[in-house]
Amino acid sequence: MIKTDILIIGAGPTGLFTVFEAGLLKLKCHLIDALPQPGGQCSEIYPKKPIYDIPAYPEILAGDLVDRLLEQIKPFEAGYTLGERAETLKKQDDGSFIVTTNKGTEHHAKVVVIAGGLGSFEPRKPQLENLSKFEDKGVSYIIKDPEVYRNKKVVLAGGGDSALDWAIFLADVAAEVSLVHRRNEFRGALDSVEKARELAQLGKIKLYTKAEVKELHGQNELQAVVIEHSEEEKQPTYLEVDNFIPLFGLSPKLGPLGNWGLEIEKNAIKVNNAKDYQTNIPGVFAIGDVNTYEGKLKLILSGFHEAAVMCQYAYQIINPDKRFVMKYTTVGGVEGFDGSKKEAKKEVVQSII
Amino acid sequence: MIKTDILIIGAGPTGLFTVFEAGLLKLKCHLIDALPQPGGQCSEIYPKKPIYDIPAYPEILAGDLVDRLLEQIKPFEAGYTLGERAETLKKQDDGSFIVTTNKGTEHHAKVVVIAGGLGSFEPRKPQLENLSKFEDKGVSYIIKDPEVYRNKKVVLAGGGDSALDWAIFLADVAAEVSLVHRRNEFRGALDSVEKARELAQLGKIKLYTKAEVKELHGQNELQAVVIEHSEEEKQPTYLEVDNFIPLFGLSPKLGPLGNWGLEIEKNAIKVNNAKDYQTNIPGVFAIGDVNTYEGKLKLILSGFHEAAVMCQYAYQIINPDKRFVMKYTTVGGVEGFDGSKKEAKKEVVQSII
Repeated sequence: MIKTDILIIGAGPTGLFTVFEAGLLKLKCHLIDALPQPGGQCSEIYPKKPIYDIPAYPEILAGDLVDRLLEQIKPFEAGYTLGERAETLKKQDDGSFIVTTNKGTEHHAKVVVIAGGLGSFEPRKPQLENLSKFEDKGVSYIIKDPEVYRNKKVVLAGGGDSALDWAIFLADVAAEVSLVHRRNEFRGALDSVEKARELAQLGKIKLYTKAEVKELHGQNELQAVVIEHSEEEKQPTYLEVDNFIPLFGLSPKLGPLGNWGLEIEKNAIKVNNAKDYQTNIPGVFAIGDVNTYEGKLKLILSGFHEAAVMCQYAYQIINPDKRFVMKYTTVGGVEGFDGSKKEAKKEVVQSII
Repeated sequence: MIKTDILIIGAGPTGLFTVFEAGLLKLKCHLIDALPQPGGQCSEIYPKKPIYDIPAYPEILAGDLVDRLLEQIKPFEAGYTLGERAETLKKQDDGSFIVTTNKGTEHHAKVVVIAGGLGSFEPRKPQLENLSKFEDKGVSYIIKDPEVYRNKKVVLAGGGDSALDWAIFLADVAAEVSLVHRRNEFRGALDSVEKARELAQLGKIKLYTKAEVKELHGQNELQAVVIEHSEEEKQPTYLEVDNFIPLFGLSPKLGPLGNWGLEIEKNAIKVNNAKDYQTNIPGVFAIGDVNTYEGKLKLILSGFHEAAVMCQYAYQIINPDKRFVMKYTTVGGVEGFDGSKKEAKKEVVQSII
């Protein structure tokens, strides 16, 4: 049984920064994450993506953000259970919790913090009878490497930026690109919409609007799709293709957390309106993109601030008899659990007080 | 008359970051600050002080933090009225505001944000009859340059880190150092207290505990102080000195803002409990160290997050008919008012959606 003060579910930026704020209060943390490494989406999905709205970073790559956070929390020696998914939460008689993963690893803590981000992502799939039969055999939901589609006949479906941008991009790569969208209007950026229509006029993209892919055909691999049109007079279009890529966005899933008895609203965990980010289960907090409250902004910055506030309340739960006086790191320095100590030079501090 | 969308009072880190968050929403900002340069305390009082709790900065000097923020907000071309103090706030019939400075500069905006930090600081002074007579003539409340006290006879008063650390420091500089404290126990860091007691035993510091400076004497300049002891049998001590430095901490002052009709609690501006950080005057917000609400943490990080949230509500006030859909900077990029545009390379963004 792993024992810690604060058990953090989710090792994304918010979960990682929680280790720092908890460490300042002398609280130890342990993190569980289904991914094999810390950093959440930032490491797994878009390490090379620039982020522009982290305060005092005019630009930082998501992967670098994670690296800096790991450096910042290093003195606080967090434990990790990686590559495992938190499955069950059990409240003990003394108010503490046992969280068990899908691999049976047990964790014991007085405070549990869910920093699960948007949860695990699943692509939104169209309702098509034999869709699963063709998955990875012509049907995919994410484009990881556009080179896969070189000289192929590709049908994309969707009306957002993702479908538009990929249609434009693949026009130069694939042998044939068709874009199917239910409506006449696209939801994407204006310049992307214009560019796509332009390419359609040049014959480099086939646009099927007010249309939907309704049938998939093929032996083992996908060989053709049938597109139905909402205008009644139009006959269905039978199209020979190698690939069908529905880009209807990703739908976040809470996963097993959904069964913990937490109050859920719009697929997020409801917390007590920005006070301490506690859920309806006392001792269980939710911070970062996974929570919701009035005025919630789904920014990494929000998760950072929520972590700082939440740790103050966690301290009171873990040390009910102590009164904690916050000390600024600039004045008190940062004392690591590893024996390290960072602090301003005395003269520097003296000159300000 | 200077016109802007959001008028920000206070150009410290929180005020500066507000420019960025407002800029993402296409709102223009103008800042007023009594100091001659942006950055607030970080630039004015402790530019060389390291800060350890800015997320993803294991360590950053306060001055560098300001520089990075200025770089981040540059595309949004904020205006500045520096070296002037916001004096009066007048609500117009249309709900907008006119803010006038002590030099008569007028500013017009639909939204006013007070990001005034801890306000202007004033030292806490002892109650001594002729104290003001000796100010700058032997009496001072802040030690700017310790060399001033070389070979002088100095009396310090206070029981906190500031008094202790300066007593220790000046023991090697001044001709004579006396430390007077009302109690027997000091509030400072344990190692400072021990060090001071050690120096007292070595005769390098004179410690007067359970004692208070009660009289100041001198012609034009300070020449002596009288120390009274709380133990009744002890006679007052008459001490010839060149300098008396009471170090009782700094007391923040709201200044003219205190007369704007804002709800004040504990010398801070009360806002509506972390919802949008609006004050009791609709259209006037307070963010950063200047505000208070249940669970408020006085961290720079809190000000950053409050700025982001507050700008969303400011947008609704300024554009009552538009509905703003938040776009992540990682997806939508950052478009400056100066024509600059930062965005992720298309391939990078595409691979995540």
